[in-house]
Amino acid sequence: MGGDRGPAEVVDGARLAWSDAIQPILVGPPDLATGGLELVEAADTIAMDEKPTEAVRAKPQSSIVVACRLVGEGRADGVVSAGNTGAMLAASLLELRRIRGVHRPAIAVPIPARRGPSVLLDAGANADARADHLLQFGHMGAVFAQEILGVAEPDVRLLSIGEEAEKGNELTLEAHALLAASELRFGGNVESRELLEGAADVIVTDGFTGNVCLKLLEGTIKTLLDALREEIVSTARGKLGGLLIRPAASRLRERLDPDTYGGAYLLGLRGLVVIAHGNSSPRAIANAIRLAARGVENDVVGRLTARLGREALSAEEIPS
Amino acid sequence: MGGDRGPAEVVDGARLAWSDAIQPILVGPPDLATGGLELVEAADTIAMDEKPTEAVRAKPQSSIVVACRLVGEGRADGVVSAGNTGAMLAASLLELRRIRGVHRPAIAVPIPARRGPSVLLDAGANADARADHLLQFGHMGAVFAQEILGVAEPDVRLLSIGEEAEKGNELTLEAHALLAASELRFGGNVESRELLEGAADVIVTDGFTGNVCLKLLEGTIKTLLDALREEIVSTARGKLGGLLIRPAASRLRERLDPDTYGGAYLLGLRGLVVIAHGNSSPRAIANAIRLAARGVENDVVGRLTARLGREALSAEEIPS
Repeated sequence: MGGDRGPAEVVDGARLAWSDAIQPILVGPPDLATGGLELVEAADTIAMDEKPTEAVRAKPQSSIVVACRLVGEGRADGVVSAGNTGAMLAASLLELRRIRGVHRPAIAVPIPARRGPSVLLDAGANADARADHLLQFGHMGAVFAQEILGVAEPDVRLLSIGEEAEKGNELTLEAHALLAASELRFGGNVESRELLEGAADVIVTDGFTGNVCLKLLEGTIKTLLDALREEIVSTARGKLGGLLIRPAASRLRERLDPDTYGGAYLLGLRGLVVIAHGNSSPRAIANAIRLAARGVENDVVGRLTARLGREALSAEEIPS
Repeated sequence: MGGDRGPAEVVDGARLAWSDAIQPILVGPPDLATGGLELVEAADTIAMDEKPTEAVRAKPQSSIVVACRLVGEGRADGVVSAGNTGAMLAASLLELRRIRGVHRPAIAVPIPARRGPSVLLDAGANADARADHLLQFGHMGAVFAQEILGVAEPDVRLLSIGEEAEKGNELTLEAHALLAASELRFGGNVESRELLEGAADVIVTDGFTGNVCLKLLEGTIKTLLDALREEIVSTARGKLGGLLIRPAASRLRERLDPDTYGGAYLLGLRGLVVIAHGNSSPRAIANAIRLAARGVENDVVGRLTARLGREALSAEEIPS
């Protein structure tokens, strides 16, 4: 029932992803037209503007909570939602719980950088973070880069306002020291100007900054391409040129389209959770489901559990 | 002596800006080729990678410190530098001091948004900020928008991760409340996806987030236009189209070029300070000097002093 476009688009997306390897289960009201897919009934829904924690507590039969419960009970291998992100976080904390040793889950978003994909986290699960959270995000991102992006030895960098170790705010200065002392392949700070060019395999930041970056990236790409089109069609010469470059522009749009990934993992939980864009098209939903399936096949949750369990032990040695 | 390109480019920029109304004074070593401009000698320089506060204390005869002193002593009306931003901040705090009631100066950067220019602050003077600093940034930005952008009643918005008042981190939640209770025309939160489209006349944020946004905006525009060019020239059809759209692309580049503004005001000081990009071209330096001159003509410092003195009094009534 999540997403800005209504349930029919979500069902279309699930049917697109449906294959021998992927069996989508829909969660929604009894009268939902499922097009042949399995339906698990959920009487309630949580709207985009409801307060997450309160709504999840008050609505145990909402589609978000029921969907997370299916994973917690082992009836599904992963959960995908384009609904209220905060409610997905609250519902998965309730129904799936955190991996032992994980302080905060993080949203890991693949960035279609020019030099190849990288992963940015946290993209908005926690608006406020501590330095030790950022260290864990580094570990979670490294597992993501290994299992999903296929990078054997991912390099991890910290988003800050200068490349030098002493540039940053209190949070990044402290996180820099923790990351530098960790077993991660830490490449130091990176500036946001490198994000779309390709800054590192893993880019660590707090959820506020990460969310601001992600939305700025999306908005800037959209505004810039719109502005370019506007300039182009303002003259006859430009219009002809615009026709000729259309395939090139389409290739670029395709590469940068958030729908290509479809979603982001919510990492740090004892179950696989993918958060799709609120405004997801059926294609984006299908890709989000495929992303979830890839996470299940690569046992991202199991590997994170093994990795973070080890790190949780060694982290206790770090004075805080 | 500031800037990544060396003093000759800065001198060229100063000569470009030289007019009946604007008389640049250069500050540098005795052997500097000034091309006829007045020179005030400064024996020392502060490099881009020096620690700002220490360097400013240790080098009272550095070009940055001497240039700020000229304004403090009334021998110049404003100061422009493309050098070490932190050192400019430290030197201007030392030689010019803060306006009474101002907690922290802020860097105010004009954003060439599609709907018309807006101003973002703080773009990096303070990596860490408190909510009452953000309230003052709102007032400083409003004066900037009135005097420099020519907006009679500027609307002020707070950069956050959702438009709703309850979306954000601890800092923005607290700042939202202060801004909403102020006399400013406060329009609530704004998301970063609107920045380049045109979010508000004044966009308030902390210096870490602001600096990240500014660099992400610059980097994304550059990477995107480079990637588009690469796609276009990969086919013969694209190449021809690329030639035809060249004027349109140039108009867009021109509009988005940071050199068009040349610099940013460092607001909250008892003197007019403009910080230019480290990598400024002569044209950017000239525009930064013209920006400084416009600030002097419009008495930005005097108006800020009047406005913030009043606000400083009323702010004391707000429980913190």
